[in-house]
Amino acid sequence: MMPKDNRTMREIDCSAFLEIDLCALADNYNSISEYVKPSLCAATIKANAYGLGLEAVSKTIYDAGCRSFFVSDLDEGIRLRENLTSPDITIYILNGLMPHSIEYYKKYNLTPVIGSLEELDEYRVFDKQNIYPIAIHFDTGFSRLGFDITLASKISEYKLNISLIMSHIASAEEKLSEMPENQLDQFLQICKIFNNPKSSIANSAALIRNKSFHLDMVRPGISLYGGYENLQSKLQVKPVVKLYAPIIQIKKIKKGATIGYGAIYKATHDKAIALVSIGYADGIPRSLSSSNDEMGGQFYYEGQPTPILGRVSMDIVAIDISDIPYNTINRGNFIEIIGSNQNIDNLSENADTISYEILTRLNSRIRKIYKYA
Amino acid sequence: MMPKDNRTMREIDCSAFLEIDLCALADNYNSISEYVKPSLCAATIKANAYGLGLEAVSKTIYDAGCRSFFVSDLDEGIRLRENLTSPDITIYILNGLMPHSIEYYKKYNLTPVIGSLEELDEYRVFDKQNIYPIAIHFDTGFSRLGFDITLASKISEYKLNISLIMSHIASAEEKLSEMPENQLDQFLQICKIFNNPKSSIANSAALIRNKSFHLDMVRPGISLYGGYENLQSKLQVKPVVKLYAPIIQIKKIKKGATIGYGAIYKATHDKAIALVSIGYADGIPRSLSSSNDEMGGQFYYEGQPTPILGRVSMDIVAIDISDIPYNTINRGNFIEIIGSNQNIDNLSENADTISYEILTRLNSRIRKIYKYA
Repeated sequence: MMPKDNRTMREIDCSAFLEIDLCALADNYNSISEYVKPSLCAATIKANAYGLGLEAVSKTIYDAGCRSFFVSDLDEGIRLRENLTSPDITIYILNGLMPHSIEYYKKYNLTPVIGSLEELDEYRVFDKQNIYPIAIHFDTGFSRLGFDITLASKISEYKLNISLIMSHIASAEEKLSEMPENQLDQFLQICKIFNNPKSSIANSAALIRNKSFHLDMVRPGISLYGGYENLQSKLQVKPVVKLYAPIIQIKKIKKGATIGYGAIYKATHDKAIALVSIGYADGIPRSLSSSNDEMGGQFYYEGQPTPILGRVSMDIVAIDISDIPYNTINRGNFIEIIGSNQNIDNLSENADTISYEILTRLNSRIRKIYKYA
Repeated sequence: MMPKDNRTMREIDCSAFLEIDLCALADNYNSISEYVKPSLCAATIKANAYGLGLEAVSKTIYDAGCRSFFVSDLDEGIRLRENLTSPDITIYILNGLMPHSIEYYKKYNLTPVIGSLEELDEYRVFDKQNIYPIAIHFDTGFSRLGFDITLASKISEYKLNISLIMSHIASAEEKLSEMPENQLDQFLQICKIFNNPKSSIANSAALIRNKSFHLDMVRPGISLYGGYENLQSKLQVKPVVKLYAPIIQIKKIKKGATIGYGAIYKATHDKAIALVSIGYADGIPRSLSSSNDEMGGQFYYEGQPTPILGRVSMDIVAIDISDIPYNTINRGNFIEIIGSNQNIDNLSENADTISYEILTRLNSRIRKIYKYA
């Protein structure tokens, strides 16, 4: 069920692991690239490549042909530049330019995504000759980073070295909302004012929503990592991660016994439970907890669901294995948390959050195992 | 407001940081030690010392006199042994003994907290002479790790080298529950059967609840790190962590504009907002998000509350700074997330979770700054 090659006995038996399938990642990059042609496909790899590891992810996507990368801040940009040294990549810093740090952008050849006059003024003082390219970000209704659209004419009159003009969609996954199309319309107006430089507005949800969002460049994040696997049919996205954790104890409990902190779950009849070595310190949301009044999340053992009983605690989750035949499940066996029975979208729905939060919050205590073939 | 010494300009200006006050940590250890005398005070430093860093935390607490440490699993035990090399410390592995890994417990001199016959049988095959000490864990109603109490007589007949007998309290912070006292009674019965070896049942909440829980050893976790700061008066616990993040853009938005993903917050009047460079990828819970129907969390700027507007996103949180005088708040200024205006307990209440989850989920993207004096 799990590949055991290339791992020592101790690594196999002792702790939770996240398996990251770099082939599936490359396949996803290729599928999206193909789907958006002739638009270019960049990659959003901020937040340590959504928790999967900046180094391995960026290398894989580079080898698949990607040459434009979006990270969140200066530190991530420097880390990427130090690890992916090919001179032919462009690294965009989404958070823009921080005060007193402009020399680092130059030193590491990083392209700030500038979205305020303050940043722009600083940049212009620094780069009087317009040598270093920048990206310009317009806020078309998200009320987050980016210039107010009323500033478009003024900024277009500056002699800037603009490598990309961009905006970001607030709710591209909401099929009934008209806001994404309104944002796109506004953005296209701005592009005209700038005499149509290279433009980009689509994240994963927007690139799936409609081809009109593709423009010159799309910049998917979550779909590269296997998100939206079930949510659309236009584009095949493969699962990239599996998460497993070992059973550290199996026990029988009597009807009426309570399980875990706060004693919020009381057994309705005699049960067999397994204690799994993973918890909220590893990134398993406490919102997967269950009580007698409220269903929680579930894990899987060889295809069978094993519901979570009581509260998820720091290092341990208790699951119900009463329906699994005695002696077919043992201490040391691994339980599927994310895998072929439960993808990141299913798990995040049960946790009342989004796949992005699940991935980015998986803690460093979980071993990462990269699968190369 | 924040100590700026020993940091480079880039470090000051660019990214969120967690300041960990090691003096306060040592003071908390000393206060608890004093409070529980003549009981011994161990330290629970699992989950990377609740996210604060195993190395710095264990060294500080060792220097304050601690000689017994509890970690969660074998990997944490090895890491602690490699970093805190003094031969006079005992390292307990709470998750017990994993299959096929017993040689590592011996090699690194780690004491497994054994809670099942399976583990015990393996250990006895390995250590026929009862040379290596173990801890024995009884489940007194938590339905988590530990032997069923009915096994006490049987186990007491084995010739074991028991360094500690322990149990764990399910809901010691619930003042009206009688369960903690029932668990203690059961545990004391078991201790008698074992002819009173060294015993321990109290976590932070139990050691505050009543001195009868102190027994031979207490093993606080969260109270060392500043949790329960406001919840009790018997014991002075100092705050240990501060969390700050920088403003990357300030902007004005018009009445009716929506903020962030899903557009769940619409401005009720013209507002000034600041975009703060921290998000759920860093460990800020999405449950702090606000909408027009639901209050969210808040951060602070120089003592003034700045409510979160809309959804917490991966790398950015928008806050309302309309009440802060214009020109007294700027891009590059730092916003307090945890500090003198909002401690970890306040923040976690607003996020509908517990301080433990907040601390353990702060991501590695946040710089840790240790304050030594």
